[in-house]
Amino acid sequence: MASAALKDELDIVIPTIRNLDFLEMWRPFFEQYHLIIVQDGDPSKTIKVPDGFDYELYNRNDINKILGPRSSCISFKDSACRCFGYMVSKKKYIYTIDDDCFVAKDPSGKDINALEQHIKNLLCPSTPNFFNTLYDPFREGADYVRGYPFSLREGVPTAVSHGLWLNIPDYDAPTQLVKPLERNTRYVDMVLTIPKGTLFPMCGMNLAFDRELIGPAMYFGLMGDGQPIGRYDDMWAGWCCKVICDHLGLGIKTGLPYIYHSKASNPFVNLKKEYLGIFWQEEIIPFFQSHNFSKDCTTVQKCYVELSKQVKEKLGKVDPYFLKLADAMVTWIEAWDMLNPPNKDSANASSK
Amino acid sequence: MASAALKDELDIVIPTIRNLDFLEMWRPFFEQYHLIIVQDGDPSKTIKVPDGFDYELYNRNDINKILGPRSSCISFKDSACRCFGYMVSKKKYIYTIDDDCFVAKDPSGKDINALEQHIKNLLCPSTPNFFNTLYDPFREGADYVRGYPFSLREGVPTAVSHGLWLNIPDYDAPTQLVKPLERNTRYVDMVLTIPKGTLFPMCGMNLAFDRELIGPAMYFGLMGDGQPIGRYDDMWAGWCCKVICDHLGLGIKTGLPYIYHSKASNPFVNLKKEYLGIFWQEEIIPFFQSHNFSKDCTTVQKCYVELSKQVKEKLGKVDPYFLKLADAMVTWIEAWDMLNPPNKDSANASSK
Repeated sequence: MASAALKDELDIVIPTIRNLDFLEMWRPFFEQYHLIIVQDGDPSKTIKVPDGFDYELYNRNDINKILGPRSSCISFKDSACRCFGYMVSKKKYIYTIDDDCFVAKDPSGKDINALEQHIKNLLCPSTPNFFNTLYDPFREGADYVRGYPFSLREGVPTAVSHGLWLNIPDYDAPTQLVKPLERNTRYVDMVLTIPKGTLFPMCGMNLAFDRELIGPAMYFGLMGDGQPIGRYDDMWAGWCCKVICDHLGLGIKTGLPYIYHSKASNPFVNLKKEYLGIFWQEEIIPFFQSHNFSKDCTTVQKCYVELSKQVKEKLGKVDPYFLKLADAMVTWIEAWDMLNPPNKDSANASSK
Repeated sequence: MASAALKDELDIVIPTIRNLDFLEMWRPFFEQYHLIIVQDGDPSKTIKVPDGFDYELYNRNDINKILGPRSSCISFKDSACRCFGYMVSKKKYIYTIDDDCFVAKDPSGKDINALEQHIKNLLCPSTPNFFNTLYDPFREGADYVRGYPFSLREGVPTAVSHGLWLNIPDYDAPTQLVKPLERNTRYVDMVLTIPKGTLFPMCGMNLAFDRELIGPAMYFGLMGDGQPIGRYDDMWAGWCCKVICDHLGLGIKTGLPYIYHSKASNPFVNLKKEYLGIFWQEEIIPFFQSHNFSKDCTTVQKCYVELSKQVKEKLGKVDPYFLKLADAMVTWIEAWDMLNPPNKDSANASSK
């Protein structure tokens, strides 16, 4: 099971490719998969894809054509546009990675097949209801420890696999400014489930998920061109996904696999994008921490639409941006359902 | 700070010493500390302690003499008796370890100074309110990642440091029987805070805590001689401590340091001790998961006494054992306060 490559069930979504070495480096691991490239900037520029890759490429014009007025929910000139790729995919699983992320090496010096580890993570259950001190009990050589209730040992389906980064850590602008030279060199050989009721900062650099289980909640919000904020796209998606997974009994894992994050983005540019988020997240986190879904919320879509209403009601007071975001959340679901109609063969969690 | 040895502020509590090599092996790391040995079996047998160690030894006769009728709360012929040592200590910190736990080696082959790592864990804050994907943000080379709310970055005081075990994993009897050859060989180079609201199975083999912050909740229950259950002493303490820490805004960390657990206990004997616990924990866990303290519970003692009432009320139905345990919990607090009067110099959390 864990060694399955899922060739026909997984798409790789890449927000853009500025670095020509990127795909060459990943060739041994990515070549067998279908790529969806969502170009984040000027549509007149051409993205070069090396020979041998099976891919589809969408630029802004394509997004506008496919979604019509609903394209307003997809960010422009920001890597948040990648979520359009999640929507147009017809596969069960998605892996998304940034073009400044390269193949990392494990402590023995061997290249890490990040995708293989994500697939392992997604194919075995999560354990959000009780912490296991030897971490993922489904990993070879590990199990549930003494005192772990037997009724909880089946676990729950895994919806998200959050991978980490060696070299440049995913710090915010203030931390980047204070610690410009800090590098993550610690390889922590571990995967764990983030417990139920606990929020985490989900990074979109090296992320895999099950579209059928959680796809409609994997919306990366309104960032970039025309928006007051950036670099909160993956965070927003992570907070929404976490509360929905907790409600629906799904799991989110974090830890392995590592990629090698090659270059730090400019902390001054980042600060400009982030500074409103630094204030706003002080309101956003309590909002998500105290959030409860009604009993009617039996699908991801229903959860997401209800969440959008509460964003409007409770976060709209923080800044008018959240009124716009709440509307975009609804538009996103409409667009998702348009491209993934509930009666289609590919069973979508929303159609159950 | 992190390199402080806390020589005058930490006692090592050992439930018994059957293995003469045990203290010799730990000599370089333990010799500077005061040991409290609580003999778990026949008081007429003599425990040999090698020269050069500073220790006090308590057998059953001593416990009876010191606590009088309240000695009924201390288990006999079971390593759960170790909690008497927590009570008689006058130090701020406790480290407790089993006599079949030896010095482990890190991946570079170096002996691990378990106590030093526990002290590091206890001296820097915990982060129970939000998960940090690079784990302990206070560790060298790590920090809070992007998206971690700044208002939560001070963390909370750390009350408990739960260390792990290489070689023989801490499995229950059924898992031991199914996987007799499984060994834990994975060194996970990591410490993390167990999030608020999440229970975990706390193992007493390799455990450190801050007596002033959480001592009165570190009661190992009624096990062994005359009791229907064993091997749930540390679990019970862990569940009580976790809900109290969550309520009082204290943290519990797990992960490093490792010790080398040398020998598996007999799974058939273990099954006999455990089997009632295997049923009961299916009721115990929901009890703790749904537990809430009243606002009056501002000290560990007050929390613990309130908890004992609810144990009586809600778990008493499961088995009369819990009625006895609930009474013993109250007796334990009385005995604790007798030996650690609130007005003493050594500031106890209860006296604040």
